[in-house]
Amino acid sequence: MSLPITLQDIRAAAGRLAGVAHRTPVLTSRRADERAGAMLYFKCENLQRMGAFKFRGAYNALAQFSPAQRAAGVIAFSSGNHAQAIALAARLLDMPSVIVMPADAPPAKLAATRAYQHDRAGSEVVLYERRREDREAIGRRIAAERGMTLIPPFDHAHVMAGQGTAALELIDEVGTLDALVACVGGGGLISGCAVAATELLPGIAVHGVEPERGNDVQQSLARGEIVHIDVPDTIADGAQTQAPGPLTFAVMRERVRSVVTVSDTQLIETMRWFQEAMKLVVEPTGCLGAAAVLERVLDLRGRRVGIIISGGNVDRVRYGRWLAGEGA
Amino acid sequence: MSLPITLQDIRAAAGRLAGVAHRTPVLTSRRADERAGAMLYFKCENLQRMGAFKFRGAYNALAQFSPAQRAAGVIAFSSGNHAQAIALAARLLDMPSVIVMPADAPPAKLAATRAYQHDRAGSEVVLYERRREDREAIGRRIAAERGMTLIPPFDHAHVMAGQGTAALELIDEVGTLDALVACVGGGGLISGCAVAATELLPGIAVHGVEPERGNDVQQSLARGEIVHIDVPDTIADGAQTQAPGPLTFAVMRERVRSVVTVSDTQLIETMRWFQEAMKLVVEPTGCLGAAAVLERVLDLRGRRVGIIISGGNVDRVRYGRWLAGEGA
Repeated sequence: MSLPITLQDIRAAAGRLAGVAHRTPVLTSRRADERAGAMLYFKCENLQRMGAFKFRGAYNALAQFSPAQRAAGVIAFSSGNHAQAIALAARLLDMPSVIVMPADAPPAKLAATRAYQHDRAGSEVVLYERRREDREAIGRRIAAERGMTLIPPFDHAHVMAGQGTAALELIDEVGTLDALVACVGGGGLISGCAVAATELLPGIAVHGVEPERGNDVQQSLARGEIVHIDVPDTIADGAQTQAPGPLTFAVMRERVRSVVTVSDTQLIETMRWFQEAMKLVVEPTGCLGAAAVLERVLDLRGRRVGIIISGGNVDRVRYGRWLAGEGA
Repeated sequence: MSLPITLQDIRAAAGRLAGVAHRTPVLTSRRADERAGAMLYFKCENLQRMGAFKFRGAYNALAQFSPAQRAAGVIAFSSGNHAQAIALAARLLDMPSVIVMPADAPPAKLAATRAYQHDRAGSEVVLYERRREDREAIGRRIAAERGMTLIPPFDHAHVMAGQGTAALELIDEVGTLDALVACVGGGGLISGCAVAATELLPGIAVHGVEPERGNDVQQSLARGEIVHIDVPDTIADGAQTQAPGPLTFAVMRERVRSVVTVSDTQLIETMRWFQEAMKLVVEPTGCLGAAAVLERVLDLRGRRVGIIISGGNVDRVRYGRWLAGEGA
């Protein structure tokens, strides 16, 4: 069955990202290896521009706009890393961006998104009331009025191909791997990475990790069709998706070996572990992959395992309280 | 005037450390560059083995022991990163280590030091009472009884040469720099790095940064002789030294352009900044160099500047509280 993206698409994305995205470091830790009983290679997308892998996909998508699309600009709905990724990529490519965000989004996220848009005419954050307004209707209206192109957070071939460059760089740096483990929200990261990994290393097993209370992809793969769930209650805000998309689901069912889940408690433990053992700030969603390996939800003993740390954008005060042990 | 270490000593140290120490990443941040008005290259020794540059010097010193010294082992006094560095280096070189620590040292540091010594016969942590006992007398007695070699935390040519490999790697990676900024405790890191930097790049300006209340080196350089101060009251526990040593002072007066100071408040601000903007856990002492540049205590506008982040070993709960903003 033909997949929505190919290794060639991912290589082309890598070419567009060269000199624009960071080639993030791959870190190792003997303490991590001892704990997992495996050889772990952490691809640190928390050290990516704007603090998450999302920049890769956003930039790859926007860089392929036609001159007319570029002139009109891009629109996105997001209160998370996708918002900042689109805002930054648009600024770098000198096009306007409109980001539709809920009015009750954390002030730091609003400010960060606006900061990435700074001084570009036509760029703005549009706020909506979660309870009264339909963000999709707002977005469609603005897109139509201004001729803007909507870039969704995951279900888009250019976005998926961009995210796959994280696995391409990882394998280029460390060579062969027995397994690759990544977090799963809507599936953009893992589907891009799964195509890169399985094309380069046909024997590799790709595993996805979801929050226990947000296992829409696990359920979808078990049922063989897309399952919709309620908005999950989890601290992994990047994985609060309700369903995978048709494109990401098509890739995941072909190229992902298994999807497992971890609890919010395990995510907090893993955040603390990254602080203490590896000196890295990792957001809850970014801990999903490592939590499954370090807590041995996935048994990968004796294997060479790549783990994507997806991002590090976590509110300072909230993060500080998690570290200090004051509640979850 | 001949210095206690040469570039050749540092290159030889790099050879001993190859494949043993991490070649730590050099990170950049556009937000940092905008704030400082300069191009900054952060050498991340917080991502070094055992969480600090200290591993470099300790391993370089122990790797040069004679067979008789190796058989008897090493002794060190330290409640900080030097303790863990010696314990780990000794284990890797399969020699016993005795670390003399105060009985009231943080339990996490005692546990970490013991963990690095694990299962090596002859290795132990010896506790003493700060008020009643003289750690140097205890150390001398044990050293004499067991024939162990004392390795001091900074005033030792092999230790200094090992620390200089951090600058060697940085310059090897980023090329020419106008300035190099590093924290100053006893001066081991900055003297090794200053020799490497000024030999490789004769035009470079090397700047040291001390805590405001612990400026023994600043005073010593101003007076032209070693000045002793009381144990300084600062959160930068790695820079609570009372005086530089004869060897480090000799290098610093020849090769360090200036020593400036920053306050504990500036260190906390910088710790928060590293968490938010660069997703890095940096201990207070490790923030000294960056604080001076980001807060523009040093004016390096328009320059290419290397900054050593010396370490990331900070108690999780204390760090969490600093981030959450609950007191200093």
